[in-house]
Amino acid sequence: MNYLDLDKTEAYKTLRALGSKAKAFDFASLLTAERVKNSAVQMSEGLTYAWATKPVDDPILAALQALADEQELIEKYKSILNGETMNPGENRKVLHHLLRGQLGKPVIHDGKDLGAFYRQELERFAGFAGDVHSGKLRGTGGKPFSTAVQIGIGGSDLGPRALYLALENWAEAEGRRKLRAEFISNVDPDDASRVAASAPLGETLFILVSKSGTTQETLANELFIKDKLVKAGLEPSKHIVAVTSETSPLAHNPAYLDSFYIDDFIGGRYSSTSGVGGVILSLAFGPETFKDLLAGAHEADKQALEPKIVKNAALLDALIGVWERNVLGYPYTAILPYSQALSRFPAHLQQLDMESNGKRVNRNGQPVSYSTGPVVFGEPGTNGQHSFYQLLHQGTDVVPLQFIGFAESQRGDDVTVDASTSQTKLKANLAAQIVAFAKGKADANRNKEFLGGRPSSLIYGKRLTPKALGALLAHFENKVMFQGLVWNLNSFDQEGVQLGKVLTKKALSGNSGDPALDAYCALLGV
Amino acid sequence: MNYLDLDKTEAYKTLRALGSKAKAFDFASLLTAERVKNSAVQMSEGLTYAWATKPVDDPILAALQALADEQELIEKYKSILNGETMNPGENRKVLHHLLRGQLGKPVIHDGKDLGAFYRQELERFAGFAGDVHSGKLRGTGGKPFSTAVQIGIGGSDLGPRALYLALENWAEAEGRRKLRAEFISNVDPDDASRVAASAPLGETLFILVSKSGTTQETLANELFIKDKLVKAGLEPSKHIVAVTSETSPLAHNPAYLDSFYIDDFIGGRYSSTSGVGGVILSLAFGPETFKDLLAGAHEADKQALEPKIVKNAALLDALIGVWERNVLGYPYTAILPYSQALSRFPAHLQQLDMESNGKRVNRNGQPVSYSTGPVVFGEPGTNGQHSFYQLLHQGTDVVPLQFIGFAESQRGDDVTVDASTSQTKLKANLAAQIVAFAKGKADANRNKEFLGGRPSSLIYGKRLTPKALGALLAHFENKVMFQGLVWNLNSFDQEGVQLGKVLTKKALSGNSGDPALDAYCALLGV
Repeated sequence: MNYLDLDKTEAYKTLRALGSKAKAFDFASLLTAERVKNSAVQMSEGLTYAWATKPVDDPILAALQALADEQELIEKYKSILNGETMNPGENRKVLHHLLRGQLGKPVIHDGKDLGAFYRQELERFAGFAGDVHSGKLRGTGGKPFSTAVQIGIGGSDLGPRALYLALENWAEAEGRRKLRAEFISNVDPDDASRVAASAPLGETLFILVSKSGTTQETLANELFIKDKLVKAGLEPSKHIVAVTSETSPLAHNPAYLDSFYIDDFIGGRYSSTSGVGGVILSLAFGPETFKDLLAGAHEADKQALEPKIVKNAALLDALIGVWERNVLGYPYTAILPYSQALSRFPAHLQQLDMESNGKRVNRNGQPVSYSTGPVVFGEPGTNGQHSFYQLLHQGTDVVPLQFIGFAESQRGDDVTVDASTSQTKLKANLAAQIVAFAKGKADANRNKEFLGGRPSSLIYGKRLTPKALGALLAHFENKVMFQGLVWNLNSFDQEGVQLGKVLTKKALSGNSGDPALDAYCALLGV
Repeated sequence: MNYLDLDKTEAYKTLRALGSKAKAFDFASLLTAERVKNSAVQMSEGLTYAWATKPVDDPILAALQALADEQELIEKYKSILNGETMNPGENRKVLHHLLRGQLGKPVIHDGKDLGAFYRQELERFAGFAGDVHSGKLRGTGGKPFSTAVQIGIGGSDLGPRALYLALENWAEAEGRRKLRAEFISNVDPDDASRVAASAPLGETLFILVSKSGTTQETLANELFIKDKLVKAGLEPSKHIVAVTSETSPLAHNPAYLDSFYIDDFIGGRYSSTSGVGGVILSLAFGPETFKDLLAGAHEADKQALEPKIVKNAALLDALIGVWERNVLGYPYTAILPYSQALSRFPAHLQQLDMESNGKRVNRNGQPVSYSTGPVVFGEPGTNGQHSFYQLLHQGTDVVPLQFIGFAESQRGDDVTVDASTSQTKLKANLAAQIVAFAKGKADANRNKEFLGGRPSSLIYGKRLTPKALGALLAHFENKVMFQGLVWNLNSFDQEGVQLGKVLTKKALSGNSGDPALDAYCALLGV
């Protein structure tokens, strides 16, 4: 396999040349019904990736295909699936796809079949959730558990929380709701205190999630909660389960009711489909719901093996993103789901993308001379329309947009006002925004003029079900992976978080040895 | 008064010249304890704006002062306070400061003293909240109200929601909690359905907020809720109050229990300190809490009159932002509160900033040739440290940062682990991040190297109280106002939201006349 920096590829030269002579895409004339119809890729689980309003044409797509081929993206993806060491900085395999099913060779590490290990843990926590739901497992006082509270931060919080919120309405509509869930993440004591004050502690099961078992915030919050449990006359070991690695201090520890395991080959931001997301989702909505989510993700992983970019949504999305980032020069991307259930999905994608590809050295530790991961942000529509869309439409800079929408709501509970349902209004707004951003509108009053040419893509489907959600999640994970491979990055480490940890320890020591740090500590009263 | 585009000012030429010859700030040597101590402005309510890690020195500050003077920023602010027409696009005054108190001349419009009008409405909804709290006003079945649900979108949602979440813990700790609150904003029917399914309808008071009384999402959600109330055997007119303008269809309407008024001089994103935020905050936490918030904002408004930039935090923050945006070329800003209570404050500031200054024409409708408002995004720390901070530390681009932190937590409920409380850990992390971003760290392994030179500022205070929150809110409102004046924009209209509204109506008509729009409607099933 050949690992090249982007600017060492032939295809990149072609793309730069195309970029330098390209006129701006005039979507006012270019965006025909025909283009909308023809610029779409079927994804798994009934989803479609539609890119008619992206600034690409056949020559650009051909050059992007050449880039995908030259960078051997599919072959490198297969190396990941086959368990080769694809996180060189930490000398690790990258195995989150294996959580969802086997697509490569069996992955054996130290004599252990990791696919079998992941399946075993999945069945263990599915069984555990079943015991909670049946009432076989109960709180100290004998009450059935009504509430699950996840204690974790970063990858142990954002993905699981986003997925939980994404399925809450679906589960209630389908009669699948088992427990309600809450999350504690921040070391700010108000976060844990608020949850502890409102949760019915005697009926609450806490899920302590830390792969290393040494995360400062999570350990502080664990002790915070243990203290509350003891003060309430409850036995902490009957109210806490751990999700961790087998080498962590939390593993095989009688302080917990049970422990479920992942390993170093599941990166935090890629761990939603492990026990990190699986325990709380299985408790809240039943193990079958979580297994459906895995099935949806697995199907998307399989489709991502397709070498033709116009038939592979994740690959195409990744490459168009590279075109926008490295040739057109756009430094950000907005994620705009027209679904209130996806309210925290942008925050998860923000982590996934910015932590994976927010890097300035390549996988060999050499600085690169091109832009890598963009800033990612977003909020649900239509809310955003009444907020930051002003800048997106009429600001001085162009922000590429990723829309997401569904034909049906999750709850099916609706009202008709002025001859349309709210769900229809939601979709009409979405369609209107795509066209407005692309085409713009001339106006003699320049303050009412819209230049258009604001690129977007749309992922749409029938309804946000667990399978569709799994497919959506895997789409973005694979998109980010492909972009990291194009940029020749290691998308699976995160050295950028280390310096803050070191300086925090120094700050807490009372004498950091750095007068500026001491001065800030004095201001804040550390 | 002289309204000049930024690039027509003398000061801007000076700034560009300083920018072209400036070396990168080497904070590794520059950031002394002395600089930390000396680079700070006292704000109101015990807050401080600390800018030691901003890339400015005395010559740059002098040029920024010259820019403030040349653009007559304080004089223009006084024009706003005096009720002159400062939203020229809509031919309106801009009076949100007057909601908090009188700083300019009395503002008379059509013979009406608007300051008196705002005070009268404040007292009216304070009295109304008192009647709800005393049980004088009750739901249809005679039960006291336990829950308030705000129905509104954009400015009628983001600010009020952010402020509610910011004060929830404080109010519980202080025994000020009166009602719990929920919010419905999105036209996605799952949003209203979820709230309606979980709220105790017989004890719930809905607050319908729309200045025009014609907001599509809000009216759809009103009918959604009315339908639920009727089905529950409740009388909607006893369960809904309106916050609107006196000329709206919602005004003086017997369909509502009461109505509270604002006017066209209070822009949506600047309306949190009117009844738009005041009714729900007074219901949830008592009218005195809301009045304290107004007092904090008023004090900050007063301080913003100071002409010396190094003594005026809002003005200095605005001008440093202009330096970063127009000379250094940074296209974004991250808002990073080390306070879980401020979890949605970045979403409010995103609206405030991007909707106010995301514009490419000046106040006279002429396109400008320089960058205006940046993309604004953010999440609370320490959460973000385990997420997108990777890119902030080691990405290929520089993102200026706005930190916020407090010496004390709101609830005062804490745990000591490894010899420090969680609150102390939170603050140590904050201090450490500021220094890490500024100074970086050399490392022979380039993957572990931090370049530093990532600019940030810090607003810190003792505790997030209603007064401090009001001061914080007003700080950012005034910062955005000053930046809009530097860029010669109209920061108080939002023409960029109009095209989407027009196309949505067409889409809903079934035959939009635009084949591309029809094609998207067909995909989505509109």
